[in-house]
Amino acid sequence: MIERRIPIQVSEAVERVMAFACQGEVEEIPIEKAYGRYLGEDVISDHDVPPFDRSPYDGFAIHAEDSKTARNDQPVEFEVIEEIGAGYVASKEVKPFQAVRIMTGAQMPAQCDAVVMLELTKEYEKDGKKYMAIKRSFQSGDNVSFKGEDTKKGNVLVPKGTYINPGVQALLATFGYANIKVAKKPIIGIYATGTELLDVHEQLQPEKIRNSNAHMVQAQIERAGATPIYAGKLIDDFEACYEAISKVLEDVDILVTTGGVSVGDFDYLPAIYEQLGAKVLFNKIAMRPGSVTTVAELNGKLLFGLSGNPSACYVGFELLVRPVIKRLLHSTKPHVKKARAVLQADFPKANPFTRFVRGYVSYSENGLEITPIGLDKSNVVSSLASVNGLMILPGGTRGFRQGTKVDVLLLEDIEGSEWPW
Amino acid sequence: MIERRIPIQVSEAVERVMAFACQGEVEEIPIEKAYGRYLGEDVISDHDVPPFDRSPYDGFAIHAEDSKTARNDQPVEFEVIEEIGAGYVASKEVKPFQAVRIMTGAQMPAQCDAVVMLELTKEYEKDGKKYMAIKRSFQSGDNVSFKGEDTKKGNVLVPKGTYINPGVQALLATFGYANIKVAKKPIIGIYATGTELLDVHEQLQPEKIRNSNAHMVQAQIERAGATPIYAGKLIDDFEACYEAISKVLEDVDILVTTGGVSVGDFDYLPAIYEQLGAKVLFNKIAMRPGSVTTVAELNGKLLFGLSGNPSACYVGFELLVRPVIKRLLHSTKPHVKKARAVLQADFPKANPFTRFVRGYVSYSENGLEITPIGLDKSNVVSSLASVNGLMILPGGTRGFRQGTKVDVLLLEDIEGSEWPW
Repeated sequence: MIERRIPIQVSEAVERVMAFACQGEVEEIPIEKAYGRYLGEDVISDHDVPPFDRSPYDGFAIHAEDSKTARNDQPVEFEVIEEIGAGYVASKEVKPFQAVRIMTGAQMPAQCDAVVMLELTKEYEKDGKKYMAIKRSFQSGDNVSFKGEDTKKGNVLVPKGTYINPGVQALLATFGYANIKVAKKPIIGIYATGTELLDVHEQLQPEKIRNSNAHMVQAQIERAGATPIYAGKLIDDFEACYEAISKVLEDVDILVTTGGVSVGDFDYLPAIYEQLGAKVLFNKIAMRPGSVTTVAELNGKLLFGLSGNPSACYVGFELLVRPVIKRLLHSTKPHVKKARAVLQADFPKANPFTRFVRGYVSYSENGLEITPIGLDKSNVVSSLASVNGLMILPGGTRGFRQGTKVDVLLLEDIEGSEWPW
Repeated sequence: MIERRIPIQVSEAVERVMAFACQGEVEEIPIEKAYGRYLGEDVISDHDVPPFDRSPYDGFAIHAEDSKTARNDQPVEFEVIEEIGAGYVASKEVKPFQAVRIMTGAQMPAQCDAVVMLELTKEYEKDGKKYMAIKRSFQSGDNVSFKGEDTKKGNVLVPKGTYINPGVQALLATFGYANIKVAKKPIIGIYATGTELLDVHEQLQPEKIRNSNAHMVQAQIERAGATPIYAGKLIDDFEACYEAISKVLEDVDILVTTGGVSVGDFDYLPAIYEQLGAKVLFNKIAMRPGSVTTVAELNGKLLFGLSGNPSACYVGFELLVRPVIKRLLHSTKPHVKKARAVLQADFPKANPFTRFVRGYVSYSENGLEITPIGLDKSNVVSSLASVNGLMILPGGTRGFRQGTKVDVLLLEDIEGSEWPW
């Protein structure tokens, strides 16, 4: 008996999956380990920035009032009584018509309220004392970075769920986060199904292919920020598959399988979901490739049955699994970022359903460009290495011509998107 | 005595540094560890793809010759003698007007030379035998994926130096690379200099700031694909600095210091380079920020003296240190990728020298956009978290208006560029 499956739209599939997405646990790690993780807490300013009034330039700190008569033909002279570098504070009181040589970042002497840039001054010595003269006046506050003007103590600087890049790392250090709470990396199990699959180390046999999907998905899991566990291949035996899947489910946050979700005789996944008591969220999506992609849920844990077709497997992961991982990492933008790009080749296939095509996104003077892979048979294999985007061709459209603007999903983008559909 | 420094152009600085860049060592790792590393060998096809003539569709394998009289009003009938899934081979000889039910990916039976898609057939049973009928003719080769048409055995599929993404990972698996040679991660030492620096865990003091540069650079090193070693802070004592730097140099491929390269009294790095016998490649670049960036070379090892100013430090790293790391990783595109973006705010400062401004790059219908950070004082600190690009404003230009197209360097891009200058 051929099972009758009802296809749903891609956006509906994503929504059904995301209804079960939740924020994962957090753990505390030292700042040295934080790069590339996701914040498990808000980063909050523990002090004003600047922490004190300071000079943004190399120059001289003065009382602005003293400079009011300075003109081109009537310079005003200041005695330079001291020099302070960053990390040092003035030790002397600055009296009228005295100045302090001040370095970038150094704290303003208490009696000064303006900084004259070095290049606007003339320096000289008289009777063993240092002087400088200026030919224009300054207002109180000129060239002073005031305490708290960049940020105030207590401000949320970076929200929970943000990817920790070098800038975030700098903020963590500045605000004293020697240790920081980050999202724990979710554990994602992978099982590959299919009698035709060989392990990578095995000698090729005429009717077999090596299991590339599981390794591809493993890399996709890592790109998404989680930890993959490759549980192995499932052979075409129902009881063995059922046992293996029941067992691995205990150890993982999410289970991804590749293959076995069609309606063929050897496609056990639907029956395994049933025996597990998992609720199937859908088993058909109105898209190409990957229409047979199936997702089930068991006690809040998601089981992704990706197609065994490599491009369907790749696409299904990025559309459905990635956002669940990112949400576990507390991201508020869990989906792949969407942009517009100019198609670089004719794509003649009609699209009865929404079609996703792997491609290479590059930059031109006029924005993004995408070259779909797999159109030219002679380089279809090697071009897989350059894939960094998915082209989206809406369902109900005919072929697309070179030069047309199309939607693309940017697979290497880190920031993500709230809801690209 | 103020030292006289001769500024050189950014491109000249990069060239002088890259003259000492070399390809690093390789190591062999299992495929499970390969994601995110750089190939230390070419990936070569160990078999034809497809490895045998196979069906790209679910359907029936036939002799095309048998179908030649098929028309809409004159169907041709085939007896279905067998069914083969992917991973199985036909066991029976296919005689004239016989067909084999074949699954996607399965090997073509020896006597067949065309595949009829399932949806173009009508299936039925007669006298306990299975039949199907078709209403159009097929040519020899129709819907057959021929052995080797995607790639031939021995082809270089992915060159050495390529970043291992999910697509490369899939190719490694397909072609039997259970272990793969990758570039060893270079070890990069970091020292921070400056009396004003506190460690991250230390309580803030009025005249001090926490050491954020070293942690920022640590993240930049990791983003570039290397392993950082934070060696600590150098205090303002020449002998102690000299000892510390001499010692750490033994353990690292590259040494990065932050601060201490100006011409102030506490800027020891130039004197340390001299005492080490290191050759200074340059100590001034015609750029803002970071003009005092200094690079020296000792026995082929590069010592990067980055400015203590955070944005100068950030920029100096990406322009100068990153490409050396990427070359050690065997990348043939070691530089940050350059693109064009529309400026999203007025940038009034004149640019006597080439200026690099950190910013946030986003996507619009018409391509990339960049918003420089630091223009709006009230969010200058938190906006650091969003930095993913550097805007390049050429020297000798006045301010730039919102809406102008400018060059940008894409910091999160993985592919890189051969020579963006």
